Amino acid sequence: MAREQLIQKARDVFRSYGFSPIDTPALEYSEILLGKGGEESDKQLFRFTDQGNRDVAMRFDLTVPLARFAAQHVQEIGIPFKRYHIATVWRGENPQKGRYREFIQCDFDTIGTESNVSDIETLLVTHDLMQNLGFSRFRICVNNRLVLNGLLEKLGLTEQSAGILRALDKLSKVGPDAVRQEMIERVRTTAEQASSVLKLTELAGETDHIFSELETLLAGSEQGMNGISQLREMFAASRTAGIAANRIKLDVSIARGLNYYTGSVYETYLDELPGIGSVCSGGRYDNLAELFTSKKLPGVGASLGLDRLLTAMEELGMVEKSSTPAQVLVTQFDAGKIGEYFRIVREMQRAGIASEVYPDARPIGKQLRYANRKRFQVAVIAGDQEFSTGTWQVKDLIQGTQTEVSEPRLIDHIHGILKSADKSQV
Amino acid sequence: MAREQLIQKARDVFRSYGFSPIDTPALEYSEILLGKGGEESDKQLFRFTDQGNRDVAMRFDLTVPLARFAAQHVQEIGIPFKRYHIATVWRGENPQKGRYREFIQCDFDTIGTESNVSDIETLLVTHDLMQNLGFSRFRICVNNRLVLNGLLEKLGLTEQSAGILRALDKLSKVGPDAVRQEMIERVRTTAEQASSVLKLTELAGETDHIFSELETLLAGSEQGMNGISQLREMFAASRTAGIAANRIKLDVSIARGLNYYTGSVYETYLDELPGIGSVCSGGRYDNLAELFTSKKLPGVGASLGLDRLLTAMEELGMVEKSSTPAQVLVTQFDAGKIGEYFRIVREMQRAGIASEVYPDARPIGKQLRYANRKRFQVAVIAGDQEFSTGTWQVKDLIQGTQTEVSEPRLIDHIHGILKSADKSQV
Repeated sequence: MAREQLIQKARDVFRSYGFSPIDTPALEYSEILLGKGGEESDKQLFRFTDQGNRDVAMRFDLTVPLARFAAQHVQEIGIPFKRYHIATVWRGENPQKGRYREFIQCDFDTIGTESNVSDIETLLVTHDLMQNLGFSRFRICVNNRLVLNGLLEKLGLTEQSAGILRALDKLSKVGPDAVRQEMIERVRTTAEQASSVLKLTELAGETDHIFSELETLLAGSEQGMNGISQLREMFAASRTAGIAANRIKLDVSIARGLNYYTGSVYETYLDELPGIGSVCSGGRYDNLAELFTSKKLPGVGASLGLDRLLTAMEELGMVEKSSTPAQVLVTQFDAGKIGEYFRIVREMQRAGIASEVYPDARPIGKQLRYANRKRFQVAVIAGDQEFSTGTWQVKDLIQGTQTEVSEPRLIDHIHGILKSADKSQV
Repeated sequence: MAREQLIQKARDVFRSYGFSPIDTPALEYSEILLGKGGEESDKQLFRFTDQGNRDVAMRFDLTVPLARFAAQHVQEIGIPFKRYHIATVWRGENPQKGRYREFIQCDFDTIGTESNVSDIETLLVTHDLMQNLGFSRFRICVNNRLVLNGLLEKLGLTEQSAGILRALDKLSKVGPDAVRQEMIERVRTTAEQASSVLKLTELAGETDHIFSELETLLAGSEQGMNGISQLREMFAASRTAGIAANRIKLDVSIARGLNYYTGSVYETYLDELPGIGSVCSGGRYDNLAELFTSKKLPGVGASLGLDRLLTAMEELGMVEKSSTPAQVLVTQFDAGKIGEYFRIVREMQRAGIASEVYPDARPIGKQLRYANRKRFQVAVIAGDQEFSTGTWQVKDLIQGTQTEVSEPRLIDHIHGILKSADKSQV
């Protein structure tokens, strides 16, 4: 239930920004998937030969299928193409906490445009996703690959950028001294070059301060200046669009994924649970479908970490403990009145109250135990006397109180109980 | 988009009746799936040995996984257990119109009770599903296996019931004469017995008339009388609960699936497209999980035919032709005002209007072509003049009209256009 609610809230945000749902088959030809996620990913493929002697495998992510889909269908669908894809992927790895052989990925991407407007939109979608899921304390860290590119260009290190990224990627784990050592010893930078790179990643403080430091550091590099101006536009536009300043942080230390991404990069952290890692990450890439088509398909997008978010929501007490989507149990007191019980159930449903009739004519105590176990919030009871006077006994299962209510007042009365229960949860 | 909307509407109904979502893994141990769906189903299994040398296969339906799940977890979850499961299944068959190797099933079931209340609820859920999907002309045909059982008992044909069901199953295809012949020649009934069985299936007319005919035919059979009284209660309760009489039809000719089901049986037909077959079918079964547990788990449920429904909705013009969930395109006229464009997008979203900004600063004509191709309903445009006067140009893309609107009136104005567009579609 919690996962479905989470996905539903994500869908609402995607749709509100005009992203369309797509799905692709779970099985792809193995040649489509092999070699796309590295050696480890190839080994983890669930791969087999089907009845038609086809070499097929279960998708291990949603990006490779999107690339294949976009390469095949971009002519029909046209660009810009905005899609979200919430679907199961499979990896034959050893399950452990937070790692499963089957899990759901939740991606959204805009394909076919290099405009920074789509990068800004990606940031806004990420923000609204977090807000719609009920998080009030989070930070989206933003960087742009062009900033580091610009610095490396100025330092004459463009050729060594892969090695430098590998070293920087370990920054949070091993600290600056070890990274410096690796850059000097393995990437063969000078001590001065290594210090300049590290200095960039250490920039901190107010956004405006970082921007002006960056402008000094990168003066003369067109790439670097481009990166800064894209970031400046992103910060200004998101402020104008109504995003609180403390929700977005310029963080030039983000290195993760920079090897793959070519422009903006995003990571999202929960203030209360930073250790859980980024819960929504993404960025801009130059050419999604280069392995499948000669047409250039730039894009930008991000992936919502559903499993991490669910874990976080559980830890933060944001997950309802109820094990039924229904709020009201209509108990069965008089087996001859089944039609009446269902009539009132359907009236409640029309008023937006999910409700069910207990199926068996068991003692009321037993039916109420079912209601409590499943965490229904209200039980209604009616027997001969109630039917003859047009009333219902309404049991508030959280407060433990019981009230006799005339039928015309029933819906309002129950709405009142549900509303005050909502408040007591907050 | 259409499929996602259909699924969303189905979920809303399931939840309103207190059914909980579950999911099970796509891969089960092959021994769980083999032999559960017959020889054909075994051949169609996508089966392989995984990295851990496990013999696994992709699920071919949602019933076997439910049985396995219920057998394993019934102690924790308790009964009655009401779940819905909307998920992908795989069958290695030759794809043809309406038959795919991968498709979505949409099942709902109540496990752990023999009460007729759950059978009635299954009928109400089916009714409300059809209504919520937008169908106004449909019929749910209802029968009960006990009726035929009762007759066979009276005729002394209980032992031959499997053969008789096989013959009856062909009734709509081959006609009564061929069925009579099969019963006499292959099932070895007398001509009189065959006529009695066929007479039952030919009962037609008003519900009350059929009930009284049945009571005469089955007089003296406890099983048969039980079946009639369950059906009578179902008809009476659904009327009291507010279901129109013409939506439910007592149809004693339904034979399909009777071999599997043990009590009530349902089939749902669209009045306008009867040829498409039943779009929601189900019934009561005695023991779901007998292959996996000694505990008896009776249940009742049905399956919504998503692919058939989608085909029907397309044929009946019930599917929106838009290829974006967004209603409003904010065109990009002044690249320096991106923040303003996103500010208005987010204001519209808060008012329930899905909206996006066109990412590239292309000529307005090109942006409007994108809007028309994707079937946006409204485009809003603002440049220097509009920003200085606090107004927006609003283009009704369906009527082809354009109006200048002051910003405080923008949302109301767009709501008005969307509302009249909705009406013109009806």
